[in-house]
Amino acid sequence: MENFAEQLNANLGGWNNAMGLRFSIVTTEEVVGEVTLGPQHTQPYGIVHGGVHCGVIEAACSTGAAIVALARNQSVVGLENATSFIAAARGGKMIVKATPVTRGRRTQVWQAVVSDEAGKTLATGRVRLMCLDTGSDLAGKPAGV
Amino acid sequence: MENFAEQLNANLGGWNNAMGLRFSIVTTEEVVGEVTLGPQHTQPYGIVHGGVHCGVIEAACSTGAAIVALARNQSVVGLENATSFIAAARGGKMIVKATPVTRGRRTQVWQAVVSDEAGKTLATGRVRLMCLDTGSDLAGKPAGV
Amino acid sequence: MENFAEQLNANLGGWNNAMGLRFSIVTTEEVVGEVTLGPQHTQPYGIVHGGVHCGVIEAACSTGAAIVALARNQSVVGLENATSFIAAARGGKMIVKATPVTRGRRTQVWQAVVSDEAGKTLATGRVRLMCLDTGSDLAGKPAGV
Amino acid sequence: MENFAEQLNANLGGWNNAMGLRFSIVTTEEVVGEVTLGPQHTQPYGIVHGGVHCGVIEAACSTGAAIVALARNQSVVGLENATSFIAAARGGKMIVKATPVTRGRRTQVWQAVVSDEAGKTLATGRVRLMCLDTGSDLAGKPAGV
Repeated sequence: MENFAEQLNANLGGWNNAMGLRFSIVTTEEVVGEVTLGPQHTQPYGIVHGGVHCGVIEAACSTGAAIVALARNQSVVGLENATSFIAAARGGKMIVKATPVTRGRRTQVWQAVVSDEAGKTLATGRVRLMCLDTGSDLAGKPAGV
Repeated sequence: MENFAEQLNANLGGWNNAMGLRFSIVTTEEVVGEVTLGPQHTQPYGIVHGGVHCGVIEAACSTGAAIVALARNQSVVGLENATSFIAAARGGKMIVKATPVTRGRRTQVWQAVVSDEAGKTLATGRVRLMCLDTGSDLAGKPAGV
Repeated sequence: MENFAEQLNANLGGWNNAMGLRFSIVTTEEVVGEVTLGPQHTQPYGIVHGGVHCGVIEAACSTGAAIVALARNQSVVGLENATSFIAAARGGKMIVKATPVTRGRRTQVWQAVVSDEAGKTLATGRVRLMCLDTGSDLAGKPAGV
Repeated sequence: MENFAEQLNANLGGWNNAMGLRFSIVTTEEVVGEVTLGPQHTQPYGIVHGGVHCGVIEAACSTGAAIVALARNQSVVGLENATSFIAAARGGKMIVKATPVTRGRRTQVWQAVVSDEAGKTLATGRVRLMCLDTGSDLAGKPAGV
């Protein structure tokens, strides 16, 4: 199975860079990424902002779905993100791991777990994405990479 | 009703700054904020990353809940974020507006709508937060501001 | 605007009947329904089961979406249901009211509020649905009414 | 580990009975239940109503959480249910299996998968519950079994 991690790290896009996300595994079966947490990731109480948890879950799930879609000449667009916050983090590394629930031709669902270096779960979420055939319209431009 | 927006803008915390969020209204009844979108907010297809939508919804809802909690000598911690993506955005300004669904003494639920400058809905979400009495433990330190 | 409530009440389908749901308003802009609560709706602690709240939200949102779809020669299938429980109920009537967030040609999102007779919010939720052109396959049979 | 399934089947409560749910395993680590599907579970298109999927997920997750709570002299109340519909079903048996994500003393999160007899996933969801110490007030009566 091809691992697209290096290719993707070379072209992460703005928000994935802003989050400090680096992928180590990106296949059609699994996506694993990592963020080294710093003060830029916190909310005013000093713990990691919920938006960071939602964001890395969104990133990992949609990257996996996009890789699946690519082989079908499709692209994907996120529909829903439902994230549960399990434990607060104040620093260290956070690892996100996403796996598919369904990789349908109309929609995909991926689930992801965010954990700390010791393997403690920090957050868990699911992302639903719609698959678009290349050439479909998305926000005024053709959908697709 | 006191508007805490200026106070909060002066001390946004790391991730709210990273998102480029500025509040204009922060009361116990409503929170309104704004983000000027740039290339740093996008995902690889060039549209705004779903994590930005989830993040500003998280920020607006928890800020409102925190203001409610403050007056009760409580703090809040996010439990769940459920965000629906409605329309893709490629730039301009995004406005987030949060209002309370319930401001209970054990948990709060706030809902938020993200729209563009023309008022078109881009995303909508709900955040559930737990209220903690000051002195409660959170990730190894007392909870609270 | 045509009100389909009577037509639908005459042909509610099994689970809508099991819930005791009766519609009063079913248009492309709004769906309102009602359930008279009894011991059959409770969980072991004696309060209304969360599945009833999710179920009436699902019913109201997908009925609205189905009415919108009908005029386009489409049908709809539910993708996601995210429900927040706000207050426990032990009896009386529960009213569910759904309104559209987006009525796109590929997906729709409707939101619903469940309240008691005094107007107190008991639950709130959002349902995302995919629009299928008539003739599409769904669970081994053509999709559609 | 004690299996509470028989005890619970003897006292399921109204809505669990209405759904036709029977538990085979109820421990603090896992809950497994089963529903034999019939016309009463369908929506107007003839497939199983989304409210049934949400309902059995709610039931399995909160039953597991309640068993955990019992040993601590706590009860639980549902806060949030986020369910993704994966495949439509028209009949046969549906099996729901729930496992814990976190069993905290303030809140619990359980996740559940609904599958058909062949093991195909039909739906997946997460339920967040708040733990209440016995004697806490819930809808005008003390919380608790």
